[in-house]
Amino acid sequence: MKIADLNTDFPQWYQDVVQQAGLAENGPVRGTMIIKPYGYAIWEVMQRELDARIKATGAQNAYFPLFIPQSFINREKEHVEGFSPELAVVTYAGGAKLAEPLVIRPTSETIINDSFSRWIKSYRDLPVLINQWANIVRWELRPRLFLRTTEFLWQEGHTAHATKAEADAKTRQMLRVYIDFIEEFLAIPLVAGEKTTGERFAGATQTFSIEAMMHDGKALQMGTSHNLGQNFAKVFQTQYLDEKNKQQYVWQTSWGVSTRMIGGLVMAHGDLKGLVLPPAVAPIQAVIVPIKTDPQVDAAAKKLNQDLKKQGIRVKLDDRDSVSAGFKFNDWELKGVPVRIELGPKDLAEKKCVLVRRDTGEKHNFLLTGAVKEVKAMLADMQTTLLAKRRTELTERTVAVHNYDNLKVAVANGFAAGAWCGAANDEAKLKEEAKATIRAIPFDQPEKIGACVICGQAGRHQVVFGRAY
Amino acid sequence: MKIADLNTDFPQWYQDVVQQAGLAENGPVRGTMIIKPYGYAIWEVMQRELDARIKATGAQNAYFPLFIPQSFINREKEHVEGFSPELAVVTYAGGAKLAEPLVIRPTSETIINDSFSRWIKSYRDLPVLINQWANIVRWELRPRLFLRTTEFLWQEGHTAHATKAEADAKTRQMLRVYIDFIEEFLAIPLVAGEKTTGERFAGATQTFSIEAMMHDGKALQMGTSHNLGQNFAKVFQTQYLDEKNKQQYVWQTSWGVSTRMIGGLVMAHGDLKGLVLPPAVAPIQAVIVPIKTDPQVDAAAKKLNQDLKKQGIRVKLDDRDSVSAGFKFNDWELKGVPVRIELGPKDLAEKKCVLVRRDTGEKHNFLLTGAVKEVKAMLADMQTTLLAKRRTELTERTVAVHNYDNLKVAVANGFAAGAWCGAANDEAKLKEEAKATIRAIPFDQPEKIGACVICGQAGRHQVVFGRAY
Repeated sequence: MKIADLNTDFPQWYQDVVQQAGLAENGPVRGTMIIKPYGYAIWEVMQRELDARIKATGAQNAYFPLFIPQSFINREKEHVEGFSPELAVVTYAGGAKLAEPLVIRPTSETIINDSFSRWIKSYRDLPVLINQWANIVRWELRPRLFLRTTEFLWQEGHTAHATKAEADAKTRQMLRVYIDFIEEFLAIPLVAGEKTTGERFAGATQTFSIEAMMHDGKALQMGTSHNLGQNFAKVFQTQYLDEKNKQQYVWQTSWGVSTRMIGGLVMAHGDLKGLVLPPAVAPIQAVIVPIKTDPQVDAAAKKLNQDLKKQGIRVKLDDRDSVSAGFKFNDWELKGVPVRIELGPKDLAEKKCVLVRRDTGEKHNFLLTGAVKEVKAMLADMQTTLLAKRRTELTERTVAVHNYDNLKVAVANGFAAGAWCGAANDEAKLKEEAKATIRAIPFDQPEKIGACVICGQAGRHQVVFGRAY
Repeated sequence: MKIADLNTDFPQWYQDVVQQAGLAENGPVRGTMIIKPYGYAIWEVMQRELDARIKATGAQNAYFPLFIPQSFINREKEHVEGFSPELAVVTYAGGAKLAEPLVIRPTSETIINDSFSRWIKSYRDLPVLINQWANIVRWELRPRLFLRTTEFLWQEGHTAHATKAEADAKTRQMLRVYIDFIEEFLAIPLVAGEKTTGERFAGATQTFSIEAMMHDGKALQMGTSHNLGQNFAKVFQTQYLDEKNKQQYVWQTSWGVSTRMIGGLVMAHGDLKGLVLPPAVAPIQAVIVPIKTDPQVDAAAKKLNQDLKKQGIRVKLDDRDSVSAGFKFNDWELKGVPVRIELGPKDLAEKKCVLVRRDTGEKHNFLLTGAVKEVKAMLADMQTTLLAKRRTELTERTVAVHNYDNLKVAVANGFAAGAWCGAANDEAKLKEEAKATIRAIPFDQPEKIGACVICGQAGRHQVVFGRAY
């Protein structure tokens, strides 16, 4: 089992790592994905952390149906136009043809508004803050494990507020929750900002996005937070009686991140040997590999395993006797386990063990008595170092551009920062000629914006350009 | 908002409690269900506990696709016959008619065997122990919230073993996991045993079931564990090379429990005032209700709230000023919160608070300094008491019967225990004439079995009869 070269064939490297590290494989129906135990374990660690962060904002989890009546989707004009090509439709059920076809949820704004319109009566019922963990179906013609799959897992938050200002603030707050989670937990720095009109969610008034840079310099959209204004409220009659007894439409937001983040994790941190997992999100943070089968080594390995567990470290003792120590080293490196602890008779004679750090490959000898402390310190340092490295790369590979030629060169290798006049046809031209798009309009804008790097007309926004997954 | 009388109109009482306690409501598509935040919070507490218990058996979580090719379902003869009437089928997707219709998973034996047949090569790969938390669709003609819904949430375990003995043991082990979880956590005692051939899972060689008694004496199947033998292995060619280098089919099991357990929780413990939640599974274990808005009361309530939280008790301070204390009492009683803590200026003057226990209605005065300890003790006692009460009822309402007339009388009010000859037409007769079925053939069988209570022929098994949801 060999993986392709990260630097010469990144797409093949990605496929190899996802499959050989046991993260996922293709399902029998084209575009579907089987998330294997190791990949699902990463998702569970992510879920646990993000769920707590979402609940800390006051949101409560709930569950809405998979099946949405076709008529619901059709109500919001932009929504139906945006999602129609991606829908999967149930036409037969219980042995008979259905009177109304059922759409499998591509997102849940419509079915949730149907409930909200019954749940919300008065200003006293607001805000309503709901989150749902669910599977989603969007028919995918060019599927790619984790990045684009016909079915994926995600969380989708849906909120309703009495005022526009509250909805505006919530849209930004949830984007901030995602940024903190992805930077602190996944060690991936982000470019955050608003999407252009062309890239906006179907039915939103504003879409905020977070974009990460992958190893090949391409952008991956890691999550979005949408300001829905009153678009869905008006078609679903989601109204409340205000303090003056007047009917008002609610203001809404929705926001989500998905199993796509696992793809981002692979492509942001991976190296020639395979996956590199930041300790916070690693299902196995440290693996103990006995170098030789030996009663004393076994006993020491078991004790260390217990000691690390007691300290809350997710540790695994690899005591398989069917494969060699060398095979195990490669296997756990491929799987991205942050710290490897080697334990052999020679080390043990000196009451020592060897710690090997996954991101740097550094090897150190430590006394067994201090091993737990050293592992903890190594995990903490690796988490910080990974984020810092990725941040440096993001800065270095984001080039300020002032003309079209430089823009085209820059996006071939990373991101470009430059001025844009706001015209959709410039966006289209860039996409056609350089396969790049405007990834985000950052929140912090300079006082003076230069000429549009595409057409030379007066710039309206400073934006970040990039090729994207 | 009033709920129907539990004793005179139990079905309406159930509907009222599920809706008014905020557990669930009907979705727009007939048979689908919206699990509201309070209902979903119960599911989350259950999931967390059961997931840990399942992982402790060595199983790992994974995720398999929602879409199953129609041809997969068709491969196992009994499986397709059993599930055909319940399938929902996708025929259009991505704007085009599909070449092969896709079935929405009614259970995942087939799609998981497709993976297992690739994952398993050698005896070294066994056992494979997989669990999945997922949504399931079975078209339901007589839907009832939580009990029978077209879409529901569940976990399904799927295992593959080298020997029949291992699969037999796993089937029983997982049933035991369910029994312990449901008795210890949900405080519901169970009748456990094997299902008759007629009630077996479509494709299994043996189905074990756990049956709980509801308030009205009817049975609710709370979970099942299936011994699949080699049925699916043979149609999916799930084979391994044994130690002598010979191809062998694996032996398999599958087992699951679902959101149906929430319905069981409601119907087993509920009373005239609504829901009664065993403390272990209650999302809110104690609620603090200040009797009057008063700065000193507020401060004491906040402090108590903090103190209880620190002790790991799931507590809520109900400081709404839009409703009266009396309204709050009713509301939290309806929602089944185990302990209510009332705090008023008079109590506070004596440095006291009032604790009210949900299941018994007992009221006690306690010094505030000892309140945390008292709440803890009350929660622990309530958990034990509820299980003991339900166990007494189960025993009292399970009547030993020796003839058909007594059987018919017994199942009108509860369970009946008696002999059965093993004939399917006796089962059919009982179903037709008394709306009752054989719920289980208990594992412990008496040495001598009397005459069949239905036909009078020689009995083969001692069984438990009951009407069922």
